[in-house]
Amino acid sequence: MHKFVYSFQEGNKDMKDLLGGKGANLAEMTRLGFPVPQGFTVTTEACNWYYENDEKLGEDVKSQILDALHRLEQLTNKKFGDPNTPLLLSVRSGARASMPGMMDTVLNLGLNDEVALRYSEVTQNKRFVYDSYRRLIQMYADVVKGYSKDAFEKHLEEVKKAKGIQYDIDLDADDMVKIADDFKKIYQEMAGEEFPQEVIKQLFETVAAVFRSWNNERAIYYRRMNDIPSSWGTAVNVQEMVYGNRGKNSGTGVAFTRNPATGENELYGEYLMNAQGEDVVAGIRTPSPISKLATDLPEIYAQFKELSKKLEDHYRDMQDMEFTIDNGKLYMLQTRNGKRTPAAAIKIAVDLVKEGKISVEEALLNVDPKSLDALLHPVFNLQSLQAAKPIATGLAASPGAAAGHIYFSAKEAIEAHKNGEKVILVRLETSPEDIEGMHHAEGVLTIRGGMTSHAAVVARGMGACCVSGCGELTINEDEKWIKTKDGQTFYEKDPISLDGSTGKVYAGLIATEIPSISGDFETFMSWADQMRRLRVRANADNPKDALQAKKFGAEGIGLCRTEHMFFEPERIFNFRKMIMATTVEEREKALEAILPYQKDDFIKLYQAMAPNPVVIRYLDPPLHEFLPKEEDEIEKLALDLHISVQDVQDRIASLREFNPMMGHRGCRLAITYPEIAKMQTRAVIEAALEVQKQGLNVEPEIMIPLVGTVKEFTYVKEIVDKTAQEVFEKFGRSLKYQVGTMIELPRAALIADQIAQYADFFSFGTNDLTQMTFGFSRDDAGKFLNEYYDKQILEQDPFAKLDQTGVGELVTIAVQRGRKAKPNISLGVCGEHGGDPSSIQFCHQIGLDYVSCSPFRVPIARLAAAQAAIKERR
Amino acid sequence: MHKFVYSFQEGNKDMKDLLGGKGANLAEMTRLGFPVPQGFTVTTEACNWYYENDEKLGEDVKSQILDALHRLEQLTNKKFGDPNTPLLLSVRSGARASMPGMMDTVLNLGLNDEVALRYSEVTQNKRFVYDSYRRLIQMYADVVKGYSKDAFEKHLEEVKKAKGIQYDIDLDADDMVKIADDFKKIYQEMAGEEFPQEVIKQLFETVAAVFRSWNNERAIYYRRMNDIPSSWGTAVNVQEMVYGNRGKNSGTGVAFTRNPATGENELYGEYLMNAQGEDVVAGIRTPSPISKLATDLPEIYAQFKELSKKLEDHYRDMQDMEFTIDNGKLYMLQTRNGKRTPAAAIKIAVDLVKEGKISVEEALLNVDPKSLDALLHPVFNLQSLQAAKPIATGLAASPGAAAGHIYFSAKEAIEAHKNGEKVILVRLETSPEDIEGMHHAEGVLTIRGGMTSHAAVVARGMGACCVSGCGELTINEDEKWIKTKDGQTFYEKDPISLDGSTGKVYAGLIATEIPSISGDFETFMSWADQMRRLRVRANADNPKDALQAKKFGAEGIGLCRTEHMFFEPERIFNFRKMIMATTVEEREKALEAILPYQKDDFIKLYQAMAPNPVVIRYLDPPLHEFLPKEEDEIEKLALDLHISVQDVQDRIASLREFNPMMGHRGCRLAITYPEIAKMQTRAVIEAALEVQKQGLNVEPEIMIPLVGTVKEFTYVKEIVDKTAQEVFEKFGRSLKYQVGTMIELPRAALIADQIAQYADFFSFGTNDLTQMTFGFSRDDAGKFLNEYYDKQILEQDPFAKLDQTGVGELVTIAVQRGRKAKPNISLGVCGEHGGDPSSIQFCHQIGLDYVSCSPFRVPIARLAAAQAAIKERR
Repeated sequence: MHKFVYSFQEGNKDMKDLLGGKGANLAEMTRLGFPVPQGFTVTTEACNWYYENDEKLGEDVKSQILDALHRLEQLTNKKFGDPNTPLLLSVRSGARASMPGMMDTVLNLGLNDEVALRYSEVTQNKRFVYDSYRRLIQMYADVVKGYSKDAFEKHLEEVKKAKGIQYDIDLDADDMVKIADDFKKIYQEMAGEEFPQEVIKQLFETVAAVFRSWNNERAIYYRRMNDIPSSWGTAVNVQEMVYGNRGKNSGTGVAFTRNPATGENELYGEYLMNAQGEDVVAGIRTPSPISKLATDLPEIYAQFKELSKKLEDHYRDMQDMEFTIDNGKLYMLQTRNGKRTPAAAIKIAVDLVKEGKISVEEALLNVDPKSLDALLHPVFNLQSLQAAKPIATGLAASPGAAAGHIYFSAKEAIEAHKNGEKVILVRLETSPEDIEGMHHAEGVLTIRGGMTSHAAVVARGMGACCVSGCGELTINEDEKWIKTKDGQTFYEKDPISLDGSTGKVYAGLIATEIPSISGDFETFMSWADQMRRLRVRANADNPKDALQAKKFGAEGIGLCRTEHMFFEPERIFNFRKMIMATTVEEREKALEAILPYQKDDFIKLYQAMAPNPVVIRYLDPPLHEFLPKEEDEIEKLALDLHISVQDVQDRIASLREFNPMMGHRGCRLAITYPEIAKMQTRAVIEAALEVQKQGLNVEPEIMIPLVGTVKEFTYVKEIVDKTAQEVFEKFGRSLKYQVGTMIELPRAALIADQIAQYADFFSFGTNDLTQMTFGFSRDDAGKFLNEYYDKQILEQDPFAKLDQTGVGELVTIAVQRGRKAKPNISLGVCGEHGGDPSSIQFCHQIGLDYVSCSPFRVPIARLAAAQAAIKERR
Repeated sequence: MHKFVYSFQEGNKDMKDLLGGKGANLAEMTRLGFPVPQGFTVTTEACNWYYENDEKLGEDVKSQILDALHRLEQLTNKKFGDPNTPLLLSVRSGARASMPGMMDTVLNLGLNDEVALRYSEVTQNKRFVYDSYRRLIQMYADVVKGYSKDAFEKHLEEVKKAKGIQYDIDLDADDMVKIADDFKKIYQEMAGEEFPQEVIKQLFETVAAVFRSWNNERAIYYRRMNDIPSSWGTAVNVQEMVYGNRGKNSGTGVAFTRNPATGENELYGEYLMNAQGEDVVAGIRTPSPISKLATDLPEIYAQFKELSKKLEDHYRDMQDMEFTIDNGKLYMLQTRNGKRTPAAAIKIAVDLVKEGKISVEEALLNVDPKSLDALLHPVFNLQSLQAAKPIATGLAASPGAAAGHIYFSAKEAIEAHKNGEKVILVRLETSPEDIEGMHHAEGVLTIRGGMTSHAAVVARGMGACCVSGCGELTINEDEKWIKTKDGQTFYEKDPISLDGSTGKVYAGLIATEIPSISGDFETFMSWADQMRRLRVRANADNPKDALQAKKFGAEGIGLCRTEHMFFEPERIFNFRKMIMATTVEEREKALEAILPYQKDDFIKLYQAMAPNPVVIRYLDPPLHEFLPKEEDEIEKLALDLHISVQDVQDRIASLREFNPMMGHRGCRLAITYPEIAKMQTRAVIEAALEVQKQGLNVEPEIMIPLVGTVKEFTYVKEIVDKTAQEVFEKFGRSLKYQVGTMIELPRAALIADQIAQYADFFSFGTNDLTQMTFGFSRDDAGKFLNEYYDKQILEQDPFAKLDQTGVGELVTIAVQRGRKAKPNISLGVCGEHGGDPSSIQFCHQIGLDYVSCSPFRVPIARLAAAQAAIKERR
């Protein structure tokens, strides 16, 4: 028979997959001889089997639970359901990865009317026993039956009110008896049946309920946010109860081996005497700092301190522990690697290496790359945040915290910012025209659009805070208001705050602060750089972003989107003129006017990045994105061009597309308007020659977007080469440059061997590749993706985390075929996935040369690349 | 040294790839001892080498030409450029596939001032020699230099006018000398240099010019229309001139071994005495029917008749021959398989089998599947057509000919048709709301949209004539007019005619006629059915189309698009109600009202097709396609639903998508609104049970569209299975059904092994798969695809002909992986490619079970499938 249940004596810390983190660590502490209340773990496999078995506990699982229970009875010399020496049990979830508070717990199982009555006599502590009983009833009703706690809590409040007391602790034994009795009645009313007196039923139902809680809404959401597959399942830990609420000599607490906020090497935590764990959480009484235990119970404190140290040394990481003192005896209820602030994570990792306790590799693996984000952006002041209530939640599109006054257009935002106001730009969705406004805003809030929408991508590029796709809010940009689900309306100039790391939107201004980065950060990142094989570049469209990226350690620019250079007011006019041109000559004339700007941009970009490589992508978006939308702008354009408003409107209409994502864009523009590619080549090469003259080393990498056939690539490459040659002749000097392509269409991946014969490099545009492979429009998918997550059809946003099965296979195919045709071809990723740790690991595995991501994600990518290399070596 | 030049004595008919069709056949006739003017062929490889060599003839090619010329001189006992015994040459193109009139020819090479002068004396035929010389000058100027013929022809007209004569033949020898001299002057003016007197230069320049003509605009267009790759190149045939214009005893003609219009077994053709080939074409003198040659020159006629018969027997197909009689001696200048009308093709193929001359397999291979189209649709009366001039050309979207009066809206078209008028529906583009109007129209003309646009697909399904994407025309639907490029305007009720087989639009009403189908057609198609392995199904959305398809030999329905059933006025209201619903209950209520219609449709469809299979695709398009666009319809909907116009508009706005093709559609609808899939399952299953009760055998195949992940499929399949079970229980009976999916996303193809574990069948939706693989929106790609064809980046419309390299590889991957997981999985294609012969051959090769196409393409598919099977066997 398959083994579904392990006693704590049978497991160890390496069995997390099967026993969950909590179960494995309880077993490990048991193995180490620590004082742990004994029990057993029902495995994660039993959880999966429960789901396969139509959400029923299998008979095999049940009988193994009974066996384990029997052994536990022998070990403890107590008996489950026996009134004289009752074994009381806690039942707690415990998944492979820590998911604090996401799943359910029931305590005090094994109590019923008969046991409670007799056990009060045996213990001579009626108050304690009936307090435990009433807690069991309420928790059971909640967890097993799904009934709200409200009725119970309301009743408790009424009893206290009637007695004129404020705290539970002031209730006496008889009150508890009465309350337990009342709770049973409430339960019976709700359930239409008596609270179960059969203790085995209590146990089985609870185990099943904990399995069920693996798929409650918040657990699903948490898994998605933290990249935990639903297939892992949760284990269930059944453990003898110990009580911190048995009197003055009892207590309970939590502690960390180091300060989780700062990383200081000091025992850090708090405890409450005569209390159960939930009382600490409830916050009715103020717990004492752990240091005070040294005076309260010096021996216990000494013992705990020693155990803490042993645990940290054993686990080679800072530990987060729960303990209970039951009648003067210390019990360890849990230990796990403690959650910590990013700053603390770095300090602890560096300190542990310096203390000789862990290796550099371990230190690097111990820090979550994603957490580095928070070190580089403003955060809310914690106290101010506690007072605030979110009014809506959108997507955590670009991290950081921001507070300011609402403006509904880029223009007004800029105006207000120039007048010294802090501004939040609120838009239905942003377009390239909003970029300047975004630069002036503290943060950006959009109602539509996903994690890779324009607003999200641009904000991440700038390192600005952004909450996108906040569909809970209704917006009226004309009348300048947003409205929350419950009808609160916010108008222009009203203050709001955004948390781009959680997606939450708050009313009012919440104070923000800049986290300080210690020297440990430098040390830590230099270790990462020594370990990694993948190079890390940044996506940067302007010198400012490029400098920022370099500061964060970028080793080049992996993607410069030239179109972002066209939106400044003086440039957009000539660009629009180019679009409106009806002859090649007119178009060339307009392009001639754009050339100096573009060239100047490239000069500054090269200067900022030299001698590192700079990848310049040629014009990519469909032309209609550049045309004016507002009537007054259309009129202005018509006037400027000396043509009729109707002509402008006709041209705009003729450029409109049903599916612009699959329309006239990318290299298709260079093919229908070769003069655009010519102008861009002149700018790229002339700028490079200029910078070369200044003694800087630069080798531009020209990237042709959206190639799907070899001939598209060779057609544009020919224009590039020919134009470059002309420039060289004109200037009497030459330099090396590369011409490569973005692989962002499935077809390009499939014919990568053909393209590689002509291309110097591939850069995987995994955003578009994901769109085409799934047939998901990133601008529209938001409408159904949430439903997909809820129904567990997708567990991850494929735009944030690379889909290794589908999209990843195409990338792998392209890598293999490309390398076969040209072994030394340079391969990188420049999609949003270039900043996502799990995707970076994939990029490492399939042998890419570099990833490119937004500047603020560069440190994340450096660490993730190091972790990938270390994991591979192990 | 690589061999680039072959004398006619070195080749044979199987060397078409290298020598082109004309060259190979001239060699073959030489081999057979036929009277052929000798010469040599410069190979297609030399053509490709010319293009690789920057459009220059290689030295190797030149020297081989000189060698061959030398041998020809020895053979003919004449000398190129020698004034006494001048060798005169014709230089003609000849590609692997016949491309009549697409490329260039130059005759009479080898004449210059000196040769002409002396040769007139030798031949004592000055008129003939100078006539030849002036023709050379004009052709050389045109073909080699690219100058217009106008100046030459204008001059000729002036000379005749001055002399008061009408025909060239009335010009005397001195006129010709003068004209040749004048032509040289005109040439010099144009070229800035003398007409080349060096005959070798004439030859080399002409060979190069013929190579160049491989890439002239009309040749590129012809290749695209006829599926000929540009990589084939053309060969060039250099041949001794013979002259039909040497006097009364000379002549020239063309003939077919059978009647190319009817297929009758009779020598068919015409000739002109004392003329060159171009005179026959010019139509100035009326040629005589070939039978008259029996009286004119009985011996020559007898000889020609015998040669004809030998050629047909040798080539085992009807031959199209050119001949010249030079001074009483017959020369064969060309033979090739003759072009013929589709009706003739069938008759000839069947007759040749009956005459025991060819096998059934050969007969099947001899008919172009695409040509069958014309047998099934009305065509223009040839005489009426000759009088008509096209006013614009669009895409040949759905074959057939139609004449009627213009209407600009479906509603008005229906009205007019009910009043007995013949109607052409003219729209910017059609939408599903236009379907009824399309049913009432003789033909449909759209300004936008490609070969797979809504109008094109629906029209092909109906077998109705359609010209789509006629961007040459400007339209104003509000003001009800269309305007041609040259400013002609057509208003409502104006008569026009459409040719859906050529894409041409004509002013006025051209008479149409229905081609008669002979018994030979039945015989022929039954042979095809015996040979093929692929099954052929039809795409049909309603009983009428299904019956039509069955009549054409469809063996089932491969695609019923259920959404097309929702557009009738009484249905669309409930459907819109369903879309507007804000709760599941409202949605279910609206669906309940739709159920009876849908069920009824399925009953009729099963009845029409039983016992053949019917594939029913669940709701696919995004919901916004069903919502009203016009203001009055929006008001009506609001009134009907008792909600405000604003609410309707808000809902419409909230459903709007940036890229609907990649939006909330396909199985994504069934996942967010499971009740739609439930209703459709009830309709499918209940209808099947009903039909089963009538004693008919039916096994519905339910197709889930746009699946990209396994869980999408299993989620919807679960709904289907559960609902079907409920229906079975309710009716107390059950039946077999299948649940499969469309493979139309790249990701689905890549994970086909996973999907196959649950799916009963795959149907490749190659339209969408092409869109996603290329990143082409079929509604928008028209804007740049023409440029792609012109620049030879693409040679074929990938929506019409399956891209075997990219899209085909994904299909192949899916077939392999799907079969590996489930060897007996049923595999078909239901995209537009299912009716395209070359794509059908591909489907056969990769082992699909069936193709499905629009009803009128079923015969094409049957023949193409037979050809694929025969080719494989050989």
